[in-house]
Amino acid sequence: MIRIAVDAMGGDFGPSVTVPASLAFLDGHSDSVILLVGLETVLSLQPEFAALQAHSRCHMVAASEVVTMDDTIEVALRRKKDSSMRVTVQQVKDATADAAVSAGNTGALMAISRYVLKTLDGIDRPAIATQLPNAAGGATTVLDLGANVDCSEHHLLQFAVMGSALVSAVSGVSAPSVGLLNIGEEAIKGSEVIKKAGELLRSASKSGDLNFFGNVEGNDIFKGTTDIVVCDGFVGNVALKASEGLAGMIGGFIKAEFSRNIFTKMAALVAYPVLSAFKRRVDHRRYNGAALLGLRGLVFKSHGSADAFAFERALNRAYDSARNNLLGKVKERIAHAAPLLVHPVAVASIDGCSSDVVVGMFSPSLQNPVH
Amino acid sequence: MIRIAVDAMGGDFGPSVTVPASLAFLDGHSDSVILLVGLETVLSLQPEFAALQAHSRCHMVAASEVVTMDDTIEVALRRKKDSSMRVTVQQVKDATADAAVSAGNTGALMAISRYVLKTLDGIDRPAIATQLPNAAGGATTVLDLGANVDCSEHHLLQFAVMGSALVSAVSGVSAPSVGLLNIGEEAIKGSEVIKKAGELLRSASKSGDLNFFGNVEGNDIFKGTTDIVVCDGFVGNVALKASEGLAGMIGGFIKAEFSRNIFTKMAALVAYPVLSAFKRRVDHRRYNGAALLGLRGLVFKSHGSADAFAFERALNRAYDSARNNLLGKVKERIAHAAPLLVHPVAVASIDGCSSDVVVGMFSPSLQNPVH
Repeated sequence: MIRIAVDAMGGDFGPSVTVPASLAFLDGHSDSVILLVGLETVLSLQPEFAALQAHSRCHMVAASEVVTMDDTIEVALRRKKDSSMRVTVQQVKDATADAAVSAGNTGALMAISRYVLKTLDGIDRPAIATQLPNAAGGATTVLDLGANVDCSEHHLLQFAVMGSALVSAVSGVSAPSVGLLNIGEEAIKGSEVIKKAGELLRSASKSGDLNFFGNVEGNDIFKGTTDIVVCDGFVGNVALKASEGLAGMIGGFIKAEFSRNIFTKMAALVAYPVLSAFKRRVDHRRYNGAALLGLRGLVFKSHGSADAFAFERALNRAYDSARNNLLGKVKERIAHAAPLLVHPVAVASIDGCSSDVVVGMFSPSLQNPVH
Repeated sequence: MIRIAVDAMGGDFGPSVTVPASLAFLDGHSDSVILLVGLETVLSLQPEFAALQAHSRCHMVAASEVVTMDDTIEVALRRKKDSSMRVTVQQVKDATADAAVSAGNTGALMAISRYVLKTLDGIDRPAIATQLPNAAGGATTVLDLGANVDCSEHHLLQFAVMGSALVSAVSGVSAPSVGLLNIGEEAIKGSEVIKKAGELLRSASKSGDLNFFGNVEGNDIFKGTTDIVVCDGFVGNVALKASEGLAGMIGGFIKAEFSRNIFTKMAALVAYPVLSAFKRRVDHRRYNGAALLGLRGLVFKSHGSADAFAFERALNRAYDSARNNLLGKVKERIAHAAPLLVHPVAVASIDGCSSDVVVGMFSPSLQNPVH
């Protein structure tokens, strides 16, 4: 049985999305269990409440608070200790669930996950990884998407190792190719950190820790040049959001042109099946579910504005990752790459949590990197 | 008369694009003169050669060498001193032209322009600025797009001042709004450099040097939230190229769906006028012509793959900028902002060219930032 803990209260639509998505997910996966974490008073108002109670593989877990999209990390972490988000992550810590999924505040989810689960040995900073569709007909996994700004070359290497584990676990590719996001393909280009990261990644490639393709540019994300694209969280976040903005603009233009007058509206009717097929192809909901990598447990972040279809995709991703032992694969790859991951900067440890982690955990930049 | 020097040999298609574009431009602008710089042996083979010779407002200027797309900056600068690119920029230096336009190697063009023209007082590093279409129906000016990686907060302020001058000169907006590209809207987010840049930009806004909107995110570029978006060259280049990649992918998908079978092809026929209108709307060729800002002269870079329509747009942009005294406006704004532009890092001067400039000038990262 694969057990998924779901933050029923998270996201723009809360239980009205998470509950039907959870039921649909259970229908599609007979070897799964859902732990639905939320405020019983709110859940009981859902039209599906009777179905939830009757379902043999759905268990409700009580929480008394909700982390809002506007809550600071401090509030989420220190003042709302019984939030649905925290209780959801706690299920993974307590080994009552194999993975946690939330559509809530990204920064809060990352901070709570770091605090409750801790990071894996050899990992300084967890990263957020997601898939984007590519022209090759597959998906490109990009990380980091905003958990970390000001990354060092060592962080980029850690992202590459974790991203490789993710893609090999979820897509079954044994040696997924890794591209280092840069502004030119030649090894000599880019900032100092990127140049050093290129050297580290080449070493890791030689020692068999990953399959380094070399530098890639922004357009390679959507070309599908490599399975994985590694970048710092600032760059990844900007690239992701610029792409979202462009896709939204193009979609708006298509709609505007087809709604211009009676003739264009007729054309839209004729073209409807084609436009629908196109829409399915670029439907970002299919790629919903970003992985928080580098933690001692599996946590997935759904887009805040996800509908039930999109949220179910995030549940699927969590299920696939748990079923394919993503955590074990990440640990294995990190252990193998350990000699390279040891870096000269000594980080003082406080209660098993490096000082860097403590600083990072409360970094406001985390607050809402992928919305 | 507005005199534009054109590097006839630059770009993927050389004179077969630059010559017809120049003639079309002259037709559209009766108060303009073109100085067409190239190898006479090559130009004489053009079908339009007789028309060129006969044209009263087109003057041919001889050059004996061509900078290729693969040439390193060192080769372009030191070994090809009579290249069409260098001679084109030299026309601006010699005040025989008001602006220079080239579709050649970006890094070489920037290096040659810095070497020949020098940077303006108060500007450490020139930047590359371009316009991108936005959902508001206008265009967002983004800089830097790859001339500078590892920017300080002072560089970002300089970009903001120069970008404001560009938009006010070309679009006639007196106080264009400036957004600082970040991963969250709150002032507290982002990297250390971004936070400091935010403070500097707020100070500049208070002293009336620019109209600072605040932080913006990647999607705001295409939303059109602000007239100008300022970022370091690494981030700008990745955002631009990721957007190009996504636009290419979406275009490819639309084409693929409409070519799937006989029915979808018929639908394409019906939808043709709508699809054409849509295509015109997102036609990136309309936005061709990036400005190299911060130099003691006007230089514009056309996309290397520009066709005659796109190259003519770059000529138009150079013409508009010269006509509206962009250089004077940049100087004026920089002079006004001078107290803020003075920063603590002393830069040693070598032959009127700061050491930073010398290092940057040969930086391979410049080589092909916007292709």
